Parts: sequence; C-alpha cells; structure tokens
Amino acid sequence: MSVASIRTPVQEELAQVEATLLEVTRSEIPQVQKMLEHVLLNSGKRLRPTIALLSGRFAEHRPETLVPLAASIELLHTATLVHDDVIDESDTRRGRDTTNSKHHNAAAVMLGDYMFAHAAELICRTEDIEVVKLFSKTLMAMAAGELTQDMSAYEYGQDTMQYFHRIAGKTASLFATSAEGGAMVAGSPEAWTSALRDYGENVGMAFQIVDDILDFDGDEEEMGKPTGSDLMEGTLTLPALLLMEHSPDDNPVKRFFDDEDGKAGHLAEAIEQVQNSDILPECYRVAEDFGRRAREALQALPETADRQALADIATHVLARRS
Amino acid sequence: MSVASIRTPVQEELAQVEATLLEVTRSEIPQVQKMLEHVLLNSGKRLRPTIALLSGRFAEHRPETLVPLAASIELLHTATLVHDDVIDESDTRRGRDTTNSKHHNAAAVMLGDYMFAHAAELICRTEDIEVVKLFSKTLMAMAAGELTQDMSAYEYGQDTMQYFHRIAGKTASLFATSAEGGAMVAGSPEAWTSALRDYGENVGMAFQIVDDILDFDGDEEEMGKPTGSDLMEGTLTLPALLLMEHSPDDNPVKRFFDDEDGKAGHLAEAIEQVQNSDILPECYRVAEDFGRRAREALQALPETADRQALADIATHVLARRS
Repeated sequence: MSVASIRTPVQEELAQVEATLLEVTRSEIPQVQKMLEHVLLNSGKRLRPTIALLSGRFAEHRPETLVPLAASIELLHTATLVHDDVIDESDTRRGRDTTNSKHHNAAAVMLGDYMFAHAAELICRTEDIEVVKLFSKTLMAMAAGELTQDMSAYEYGQDTMQYFHRIAGKTASLFATSAEGGAMVAGSPEAWTSALRDYGENVGMAFQIVDDILDFDGDEEEMGKPTGSDLMEGTLTLPALLLMEHSPDDNPVKRFFDDEDGKAGHLAEAIEQVQNSDILPECYRVAEDFGRRAREALQALPETADRQALADIATHVLARRS
Repeated sequence: MSVASIRTPVQEELAQVEATLLEVTRSEIPQVQKMLEHVLLNSGKRLRPTIALLSGRFAEHRPETLVPLAASIELLHTATLVHDDVIDESDTRRGRDTTNSKHHNAAAVMLGDYMFAHAAELICRTEDIEVVKLFSKTLMAMAAGELTQDMSAYEYGQDTMQYFHRIAGKTASLFATSAEGGAMVAGSPEAWTSALRDYGENVGMAFQIVDDILDFDGDEEEMGKPTGSDLMEGTLTLPALLLMEHSPDDNPVKRFFDDEDGKAGHLAEAIEQVQNSDILPECYRVAEDFGRRAREALQALPETADRQALADIATHVLARRS
C-alpha cells in the first residue's frame, strides 16, 4: 500500500488543494512569492489535507468548503514549520552578517504570520463559526505544546505522561482537527464526528512517536537532520525517556544533561544504547497501539473505500522511514 | 484633554477588557504566564480597544461581544509586538550563550503564536463569521505591510506613496478594523460602519506618522529607543523620505545607505538635518491632514459623547510625545 493509492479517492480534490496553495503563494512582492513557493510547493505528503478530505465524505460531501478547509490545514501546518525554522536558522546562521541574518529571521517570522492569516482567511470560507472555533483552539493547543516543549528543554525530571501530553498538543491536535473539521463541514452526525476526531488524534500520536523513533533510527540523509537531533536540543522524546526509565540512576541522557563537557560522547552513547536495546521495538509497540485505536475508532463509520483509505493511513504512518 | 477623559464613556468596559486579558495570561506553565503578564499587563494606552468600544455604541450596544472583540484587538496588536521583538532581541542578545538566546527566540515566536490563537478564540466569541473574516484580512494586511517593510529595507529608490501604502497595512489596518469591528458587532447601518472604518484608517495613518516623527524628534528615554532607530535599521519613514526628496542627488540618507564606512556620521547628519529643517513641521501637516479626515468621517454619525471621544482621539494622537 503506497501513499499514492491511499490518495486515490480524493485525488481530484487534492489537486484543488494544490491550486489553492498556489494561489496563496501569489504576492506582489517577488521575494515573498519566492519564499512562499519554496515552503508551500515543495510538496510534502499532504497527509493532513488527505485526512480532512477523506473525513468529509461520509455525510454530505461539500468539496467547495472541504477544499479550503484542507488547504487551510496544510497552510497552518507549514506556518508552524516556518516558525520552527526561525529557531533552527538562528543557530546555523550564526556568525553571518547581522543585518542579513536579522532580516532573515524577521522575514521568517512575518512569513509565518502571513501564512497564519491566509489560513484564517481560508477557514472562514467554510462560513462556519464552529469550524473557525475548532481551528483557534487547535492553534492554541499547538502553540501551548510547542511552548511546553521549549520550556521543559533540558529538564531531566520528565516522564512519558508529560511527553504524551506535549505531543498531543504539538502534533495530534492538528490531525484530530483535520478529521473533525472534515466531518463538520460534511454535516456529519455527532457520533461520526467524534469517531473521526478520535481517529485523527490517535493517528497523530502514532505519527509523532514514529517521528521521534526515526530521529534515533532514521537515515540522516532521508530525514535531513542528524541522528539524535531532538536530544541534542534538550528535547526528551519517548526513546530517551524509556532509556532513562530503564536505568534511572545513571544513563547517558542524564550525563548529557549534567556534564557540561564531553556532551558529544554522551549523546553518541545515548544514541548507541537506544539503537542497541529493546527500546525502539518498545516505542513501535506504543505507536502501533495508537494506530490500532485509530482503526478501531473508524468502526463507528460506514464501511466505504474512504474509511479503508483512512485505515490505511493509520497503517502507513507506522511503516514510514522518513 | 487627557487620554483618561477620552476613556470616560467606556471605562467600565475597558476594565472588562483588562479582566479578559488577565484571563489570557493564565497558563499552567509558570514561565509562560510570567511572559504573558509581562507583555500584556504592563498596560499600554489601550488606544485600539478604546476605539473599538466607542465605535460599538452608536447602534445596538452589545458589551458581551464588544469586550471580547476589543480584547482580541489588543491581543493581536501585542502579538505583533512580541514577534517584532524576536528581531530586535536576536540583535541585542548577540554574543550570549547560544542555547539561551535560541530558546529565547523560540519562546517569543511561540508566545506570539499562542497570543494569535487566543485572539482568534476571542474574536470567535462574537459568533459573527463576517467579523472573523475582517480579522483574518487585517492580519494579512499587517503581515504583508511588515514583510514589505522588511524586504524594502536599505532600498534607496522608495517614495512617499510606497511609505503610505506600507503603513496603511502595517498600522492603519488594525485601527480601521477596531472601529469597523465595533460598528459591526453593534449591527450598525452600512453608512456608519464605513464611516467608522474611514475614521479608524485615518487615525491609524496619523498615529504612525507621528510615531515616525517621534523616532527623529522624541525623547530617547520616553521612547525607549535611540533617535533615528528606524533609519538605523534601513527603514525609510516620512521624515527620511522628505529629506531625500528635498536633495535627491546628495543627502546623508543616501550616504548612509551607500557608504559602508562612517555610517554613524551619516546617520547623525541625517537626524540633524531632519531636526533643523522644515521637514518635521511638514510631516506634522501630513499627519494633521489625516487627523482632519478622521474627524470629518465622524460627521456621518450621531452627535454623541462617544463621537466626541473618538474625535478627541484623532486630536490626541497628534499631540502625543511618546
């Protein structure tokens, strides 16, 4: 099962989502257009819009509002990535001409804000204040999740419950909203809407856990970042947390946090211990559990090709390698 | 006429706006709460919420939606200030421990996003999709204005028309939306709503021009920034543009842009020439013209104490010294 086959039922509407995103990139300022094209059109997997579009096909199918909703979700997602980059780039661009890097940071912040504004404009096209409310709550959950992660960086005393709470806000909330928003636009009955939200939330949890596994185990080139980059930034994800749980008194994560010198060695040791233990299979079992719950939630819905495609997504996020 | 007397008709509702903002600062993350309190409760003049509240008193006065609208406007305004600070602080904090400054930047970006999300949540309390649409368009205009300013920094070939266009987006749009949003929530007839938007836009233009005058002429301590700081960052405001217009072939602004060395001297000369010429009175005349247009727009409205307070605001923004 490939991503392409999952997309089959909504191929035409995904093309309309692309057209909407292309429209968003149009700007009277050439540099802004270039930046928007760069971040929006180097197309990702469009997983969230696909979920939204599929979720909008169980009751009254309304492509004219479903497409702006799906485009808005992708835009919101990309805007948060652009803001994340501000942080990263301020790091890698250190030492460059101040004005340039300053302007670069400024542009990325403003560009993200501009994309948020466009996402708001698109979501208003649903003409449904309840959908807009859902979006504002999601944005709040995402921002709070990011803030919590940022504030708790380099804090050793964290547990897996805090981790789950954090990724629920940071990642799963937008997946949940993709599914719930699609259901709402279709005027789905309450039971279907809540089943789809449940589905989306669990897919999102599985997705993020796999992301955090791949940070320890993925191909550096495919992932586009070095192995262990989360830990390097002081962010404790499930593999690191399990390593800490297994040897609470002494472990390379603790040494990485405590020891001002020799950080590189402790990090390498942490990566090595995560890779050569039962930690990653354990993480996969947790992710699979969320995937299973996502598929179970779908049982409340009519058995259609769209439902099957949603179930396939829950399976697919567990199999991805980048 | 003091700001306090202008506020008299809406004093009680302004207190409710403060209470709403206080509510927004509540967070389960203590550091986040501290940051929110710092940016939101060191109360500014609340000029935009005051305009919104006054504008909502000509038709059907609905405090229960007017207050969230006014709070949302102040929150949106403050969120853009927080994002502006990301740029400034990345500059002043240069040389500090990377992780700290990185986290600081990250936090400011996320905090601004969190505030945008709260602003969206508050604006949804109006239950009016048209008001939400107005907000999304305003956010877009503001972000586009900021982007244009950023992209055109250190570009010599700009004229006053571009400047007016830029500040219309960056500043006047939120003033216009404050007045128009208030009118909409009150269910005002179209003629009043459009008159109030017109009023807000002109007050906003006057406000920003005075801001740009004070950057050359204000008390450094009261302003909290050095004289000429806009030009220092490569931003051409009205006083600098008029200096360029007066001596197009050779002037200290051109030399400041062209000459890699001796920038400080050229900047000082530009400030000195702006201060000791007819440029600032000329700028004030432009600002006064916008103020006059704002007051004229109010003629379409019933002659009430609220209308007088709005007119007083248009006068007040011209008299402010910080």
